Amino acid sequence: MPISPLMKSIQHKIDNKTKPLGALGQLEEVALQMALIQARGSEHAPEKIEINQPTLILFAGDHGIAEQGVSIAPSVVTQQMVANFLVGGAAANCFCRVNDVAMQIVDCGMIARVSSDNPDYFEQPLGNGTQDFSAEPAMTPEHVARGLKMGAERVHQIATQGCNTVLFGEMGIANTSSASAILAALSQQPVEQCVGYGTGITNDQLELKKALIETALARFDSRDPNEVLAEVGGFEIVQMVGAFIAAQERNIAVLVDGFIVTVAAYVASLIKPACLQQMIFAHRSHESGHQLVLSLLEAKPLLDLDLRLGEGTGALLALPLLRASAEFYNNMASFEQAGVTV
Amino acid sequence: MPISPLMKSIQHKIDNKTKPLGALGQLEEVALQMALIQARGSEHAPEKIEINQPTLILFAGDHGIAEQGVSIAPSVVTQQMVANFLVGGAAANCFCRVNDVAMQIVDCGMIARVSSDNPDYFEQPLGNGTQDFSAEPAMTPEHVARGLKMGAERVHQIATQGCNTVLFGEMGIANTSSASAILAALSQQPVEQCVGYGTGITNDQLELKKALIETALARFDSRDPNEVLAEVGGFEIVQMVGAFIAAQERNIAVLVDGFIVTVAAYVASLIKPACLQQMIFAHRSHESGHQLVLSLLEAKPLLDLDLRLGEGTGALLALPLLRASAEFYNNMASFEQAGVTV
Repeated sequence: MPISPLMKSIQHKIDNKTKPLGALGQLEEVALQMALIQARGSEHAPEKIEINQPTLILFAGDHGIAEQGVSIAPSVVTQQMVANFLVGGAAANCFCRVNDVAMQIVDCGMIARVSSDNPDYFEQPLGNGTQDFSAEPAMTPEHVARGLKMGAERVHQIATQGCNTVLFGEMGIANTSSASAILAALSQQPVEQCVGYGTGITNDQLELKKALIETALARFDSRDPNEVLAEVGGFEIVQMVGAFIAAQERNIAVLVDGFIVTVAAYVASLIKPACLQQMIFAHRSHESGHQLVLSLLEAKPLLDLDLRLGEGTGALLALPLLRASAEFYNNMASFEQAGVTV
Repeated sequence: MPISPLMKSIQHKIDNKTKPLGALGQLEEVALQMALIQARGSEHAPEKIEINQPTLILFAGDHGIAEQGVSIAPSVVTQQMVANFLVGGAAANCFCRVNDVAMQIVDCGMIARVSSDNPDYFEQPLGNGTQDFSAEPAMTPEHVARGLKMGAERVHQIATQGCNTVLFGEMGIANTSSASAILAALSQQPVEQCVGYGTGITNDQLELKKALIETALARFDSRDPNEVLAEVGGFEIVQMVGAFIAAQERNIAVLVDGFIVTVAAYVASLIKPACLQQMIFAHRSHESGHQLVLSLLEAKPLLDLDLRLGEGTGALLALPLLRASAEFYNNMASFEQAGVTV
């Protein structure tokens, strides 16, 4: 990336803080990226980095492939976990509470509706789960087009309300299978490298998962992101891709969670490369395909805590590092201010 | 470590949360450790993990060895940075603010006193900087004995006021030289592996630093922690060692910062191995000797952000992960509570 006047101005401000050059490591990179986003179009470093109304959007959907037994749990657990999110009982709720993050839950297409009067629950289902992608396309091109818009809509709505930092998370039994298939199709890397144990399947299940993905990939040879989404995608993944694109349009930062969200980020970056500028990679998960997609994106995540839960938990845990980056950028003394004579 | 009834009871509680087994990775280990600390003496998992009045104690001191030019800055910067801490301008202040942590600053023996009426400033100097340890012992055995008590006193005081989680940080120009010398003397590892670039010295300075440490180590062959502290220690390091020991006595958790604090932790663990139970390792810093001491302690730090600042900044950045661990332990639904049928 060529050094722009804006980048130079921001780096100068960071380098003048009372610390040895570069001593805050990755936090300095986060501050630089957030300042670049927030000053887009200017030549001068912004006075402050702001993190306004950070919101986790948790996209839920079901997958036909789950019927093949590629996951540790049956599809009904997607609805049960959504019900858990709605009453505040899941890990994602806990981490929203301690880190003061709002949460929206989106039904992108679970097998059945979950009824709730929670005002942060949004029903925008594309259907009752996708088709089993090992046998037929997961969804139609119309589903993809509609899903991209629906996901974008969530981001436009919260951006209009003043949110400038979003976190994406997902819930969907068997969605690592879909994410692995998307990754293999678009990257042309061996399926072997794109799959992993998800939340804890057996070796036999892993072999089955690979075989089913190979079967699906043999059906088509497109590398068009929209076509790949239709073939092997998931309703929650499609809506996340739309949400990433909208975040770029609204110029808001996105904290990217684990494997499935990162695959959605990868798809969005292929559709619109500028999306990459908004992405802050939260963590490196336990899932092996995550390493691959992170390296394709040249991403250097903030955390590496052996997480393999999804739900946006990794993104939520990284948010305090964004707040710390903003605070040092905004309020740490310069050498001149502090009278430090290095 | 053998599995105690208490450990089993805590693990059972963690495993019943609505998530796949182990899916919260290192956060589960943190929750286990904090629960073990807080239920010490019981056979039953505590109902809640509490993080009360978390406080950073920032130990400052000066080093005679600094006159040899082994640091990027002169000793006067120790006082200038302490003045910066006292008015809230440093990185540590920023991270205390965003993470809601109290800060105490302790003059353990800077070259000169900094005057301040800040109620969180404690003057307990052991002298006006240590002696140059390349020429003579850094301090006397009496300094060590007195320093251990003084450091402990800080912890006893805040524990009495209700704090159950402390973070230790340090400020002291040239204190990586002292920490490296302590580490080499006690671990009997090559000096080469114990030293690093600190906050950014040149290759020539690094060679000088090694040579001066070799000279000091040639003067004595004790592996007694107290004797090593007297030979090559620092006033702030000695007080930190006392503070670690007091934290064990008061059964409070300590978030361990970077290289210098981890060396103090190592010394404390040699004096009283039970200290290890209280230690939560916050981060892996850029400093090469840090890798060595972490591996000697079999520590697996939470963060790896390329930090090389000290001041307790790494510990402060890890605190939100402790809060997240406590929150999931305390308030995440069990499978039964959530009606999740995995």
